[in-house]
Amino acid sequence: MKEEGVIAAEPMNGGGGAYSYKNNSYYQRTGSGVVKEMIDEAILEKLDVNKLTCGGSNAFNIVDMGSSVGPNTFIAMQNLVEAVSRKYQAETPSTKHLLEFKVHFNDRCTNDFNTLFASLPLKRKYFAMGVPGTFHGRLFPKLSLHLAYTSYALQWLSRSPDRCLDKNSPAWNKGRIHYARAAKGVQDAYAAQLGEDMDVFLGARAEELVPGGMMVLIIPGVPDKIPPSRLPNSLIYELMGSVLVDMAKRGVISEHQVDSFNLPLYTISPGDIEAAMERNQCFDIERLEMMSTVKAIGRPMDWQSITKHIRAGLETIISKHFGSHIIDELFELLCEKTGDNFEALEATYMDKNQLLVILKRK
Amino acid sequence: MKEEGVIAAEPMNGGGGAYSYKNNSYYQRTGSGVVKEMIDEAILEKLDVNKLTCGGSNAFNIVDMGSSVGPNTFIAMQNLVEAVSRKYQAETPSTKHLLEFKVHFNDRCTNDFNTLFASLPLKRKYFAMGVPGTFHGRLFPKLSLHLAYTSYALQWLSRSPDRCLDKNSPAWNKGRIHYARAAKGVQDAYAAQLGEDMDVFLGARAEELVPGGMMVLIIPGVPDKIPPSRLPNSLIYELMGSVLVDMAKRGVISEHQVDSFNLPLYTISPGDIEAAMERNQCFDIERLEMMSTVKAIGRPMDWQSITKHIRAGLETIISKHFGSHIIDELFELLCEKTGDNFEALEATYMDKNQLLVILKRK
Repeated sequence: MKEEGVIAAEPMNGGGGAYSYKNNSYYQRTGSGVVKEMIDEAILEKLDVNKLTCGGSNAFNIVDMGSSVGPNTFIAMQNLVEAVSRKYQAETPSTKHLLEFKVHFNDRCTNDFNTLFASLPLKRKYFAMGVPGTFHGRLFPKLSLHLAYTSYALQWLSRSPDRCLDKNSPAWNKGRIHYARAAKGVQDAYAAQLGEDMDVFLGARAEELVPGGMMVLIIPGVPDKIPPSRLPNSLIYELMGSVLVDMAKRGVISEHQVDSFNLPLYTISPGDIEAAMERNQCFDIERLEMMSTVKAIGRPMDWQSITKHIRAGLETIISKHFGSHIIDELFELLCEKTGDNFEALEATYMDKNQLLVILKRK
Repeated sequence: MKEEGVIAAEPMNGGGGAYSYKNNSYYQRTGSGVVKEMIDEAILEKLDVNKLTCGGSNAFNIVDMGSSVGPNTFIAMQNLVEAVSRKYQAETPSTKHLLEFKVHFNDRCTNDFNTLFASLPLKRKYFAMGVPGTFHGRLFPKLSLHLAYTSYALQWLSRSPDRCLDKNSPAWNKGRIHYARAAKGVQDAYAAQLGEDMDVFLGARAEELVPGGMMVLIIPGVPDKIPPSRLPNSLIYELMGSVLVDMAKRGVISEHQVDSFNLPLYTISPGDIEAAMERNQCFDIERLEMMSTVKAIGRPMDWQSITKHIRAGLETIISKHFGSHIIDELFELLCEKTGDNFEALEATYMDKNQLLVILKRK
């Protein structure tokens, strides 16, 4: 049987515990907050709300793709609803029709929607829906969305490249779990997977969005021309890989388990987006910009918090591959290693670490 | 502080265990199955699919209100999608536009949507959404639905009447948990609550459905002019009340707990529907009919199964009021009592036990 890459079908940690995404998503929340004004501005200047909603039910349909369980998504969705409402009032000051909002929270089937629904703000100004399924594929009927948003989700590939499991391929990724500090062949396989995934993602959204509809992508990113080995998370994944190799040597897990595990995560550059847009041709780029979230986070780098954030995001996918019994040990050892390598980790720090993309459907 | 009635905010039993709704909803499933042909016929004869969906996104929007966790809802929704597709093909044999379906699974916030989403049929021909919230209120933007369906959910009142807790009211329901075999004042209070709830339900759906849109209601019902004391479930709720009174005498629960508990359940008659339609005025009645599900169930009355079905439906609401520690004992004692009263229970049997209502938005 041909071996297959790691499929990114596992959700962020559910519930509300110490390692939950709910309690370990501060960095993502800050990142989304940094771009609030830019999104507001794009909606004010580029979104023709009245035209999009006239002649139907006066409903405005929004989706957050990869919403996880909250609370970040609730803040972001309220901001969007308020911005679109303001624009609509500015466009149609004398209208008696009130705009009604439908907000769709999308994430994989295995996302903890029960926690999401239980946490919905009571005084929300929208009708809330949950949409289970991958955004690497169609989620909605054609022409049924006005505004599609995603924050800190597009770095997930649909799967890690199958080729990285083939011993005879230059993409064989023995003893590592990520592309950033791996061989060129591995890096190429990951880049090809990103290209495929972006094409599917943009193709699906192009069908779902009405002409004039808008798409906002907030992605952990990297400026153009930075070599993969210098990516912000490259060292921490390298350390995680070496912890796993050590655990394999001690027989806690098998060597084959390590070799067959590759994180389906990719750090996207502006050039990656431009290339995908060039292939897709259905959108105009309204904004494409690298920015810094570091000042907004407003506290010094703290590797314990970063390790907890990484655990909230990766625990389920690691558990599925290696078994949940290794999680505590893995993250304790990783925490030690990050302490030992503090200076080298600091050196991977990059001021411009987030990509904002605003697109408009032609 | 004024005491308030039991709010029907608790879901059917989640998960897939021995007492789960998933494994104890055979009677409801059979009931929905009995009316399949009648619904198909109404869609074929009365629903103008092309007119409803033309000029937009070619999306047809369906909701199942009170869907619970499946599997019943998946069977019902697939039947509806197939019937609407057949009608659309018959209307527009040469069209190149394919209809796309959005199916909304609605239930209370506390419903186990994780189980629902994990059980979604893989080969479904629709986009699936979960909609958390009570159908006694708005769930969707105006004019955004084409077909609204509910099966075995409208018997739930939004709450039991507050008046039943007032010692000075003729509706004071001491030592009982339901209206059917209670004083006239209790019966009147329940009937008034049903009237209020139906008005809110129909008012909300009248706003959400497009003109020409259809609503299908399948409800455990009773023919007109049957006195409440002869309702099919009246004796079993009477027995459950007497088990609770016995448990209070033994100090397992308090007398006040029993007196302040009233099941928010009502058995609807055709006359109840006609009166509500008369008040609402937004719908035409296409079909209103009592029918029998007994032949379709095709196996003899079995009080153990019935008790398990009742447990799957009522366990969470009873647990919330009395505490979950009483559940096993309560249902064991109830099972004994149903055995002791087998003949009397048989006598409450009623051939016509299900109400089918098909409405069309004017």
